[in-house]
Amino acid sequence: MEVLSDRKILDSWAKNVSPWVKAIKNGQIESRRIATDQAIIETITSVSGNKVLDIGCGEGWLVRELLFLGLSATGIDAIEALINKAKELGDGLYKVLEYEKMSSRTIDEKYDIAVCNFSLLGKESVEHIFKIIPSILNDNGYFIIQTLHPNVSCGELPYIDGWREGSWTGFSNEFSDPAPWYFRTIESWSNLFHKHGLKLIQLKEPINLNTGKPASLIMIGHAVIQ
Amino acid sequence: MEVLSDRKILDSWAKNVSPWVKAIKNGQIESRRIATDQAIIETITSVSGNKVLDIGCGEGWLVRELLFLGLSATGIDAIEALINKAKELGDGLYKVLEYEKMSSRTIDEKYDIAVCNFSLLGKESVEHIFKIIPSILNDNGYFIIQTLHPNVSCGELPYIDGWREGSWTGFSNEFSDPAPWYFRTIESWSNLFHKHGLKLIQLKEPINLNTGKPASLIMIGHAVIQ
Repeated sequence: MEVLSDRKILDSWAKNVSPWVKAIKNGQIESRRIATDQAIIETITSVSGNKVLDIGCGEGWLVRELLFLGLSATGIDAIEALINKAKELGDGLYKVLEYEKMSSRTIDEKYDIAVCNFSLLGKESVEHIFKIIPSILNDNGYFIIQTLHPNVSCGELPYIDGWREGSWTGFSNEFSDPAPWYFRTIESWSNLFHKHGLKLIQLKEPINLNTGKPASLIMIGHAVIQ
Repeated sequence: MEVLSDRKILDSWAKNVSPWVKAIKNGQIESRRIATDQAIIETITSVSGNKVLDIGCGEGWLVRELLFLGLSATGIDAIEALINKAKELGDGLYKVLEYEKMSSRTIDEKYDIAVCNFSLLGKESVEHIFKIIPSILNDNGYFIIQTLHPNVSCGELPYIDGWREGSWTGFSNEFSDPAPWYFRTIESWSNLFHKHGLKLIQLKEPINLNTGKPASLIMIGHAVIQ
């Protein structure tokens, strides 16, 4: 199935668990190693809150980092093989759960902070997460997203929302069948926060010092009780 | 005086009043004509409020548009010749005032909306405006900025705050001595809102349909009473 869809994203990722686990373990992704890993940790620890839900946790590196820093952290991911790997690699609570199945029933606790670190790649699945986020956050909780910087990742294509073909350029040749992703402008991200009652209180642009350009965009949403 | 400074910006603009008035009158700046003029008007009318302060109003086109739409609008600008031109071109309240001299004393009324349409070009002068904005806005007032999109206007230079040389490329050859400007990243703009108690509630990226890229960045700050 080669269509560009949320389902295709999961199919592709399920095929790349093993090289992905290796890439993270060995620090093969330069922008993560020199910029974005530290940036997401600093952002999480800059807001008040102790109980973190890592949505799209993959093999769990961020959950382990947060536990190491003394926070409480739970990871969820749609790919069972990644969750199995996460459980194998350390402590932490993990659960296999597709984004579309997230609800206040399947997520039966509330969190101070929900984080998506380069894990919002789809269309409907992402919209669903924004819809349910307010119901799984504590009052005054935070929703933190790190994603490819829209203006940098746009490339030569028009700056409008839409599905894009994936690529493993720059990754080892063990990777195959790259996942498509749904491009969103900064305005569209901003609208998602606004529409779901989250105040977009801060934007960060971690710089990749090797390129002098933003390595990512971090957005902090605040679930303020009116 | 060729240094890059807030003072030099005013010196340069004072020399270009006549071609600027002509450029605006004749719609010579394509991105304004096809994208950003309409975008700032739509943004102002999308938030609640009637009484608008246009900071850096130039020859007053936006004040006149807002009056035409039934809003109350006052324009301030540091360049006396531009304010004289604004008064000549139509109704509206206008005042010559340098940004650094803005205070709750020199601005003796409060506004529902303060807007800066491509008029935040300096360093200290911009920081001063953010500092005094909360004192000149009514409770729940809005501060709306339209500016060059940082990721587009950055060009090949490193994506970090700093003074940049100006240019009149694309303008008529009646323009001279281009004003320098102080480049700010999206993160830096976001920090200015945050630091001064303004919630950055929405970001917009009006698209230039001829280039397919953002023509500007619009930020809406909300002076929420906690």
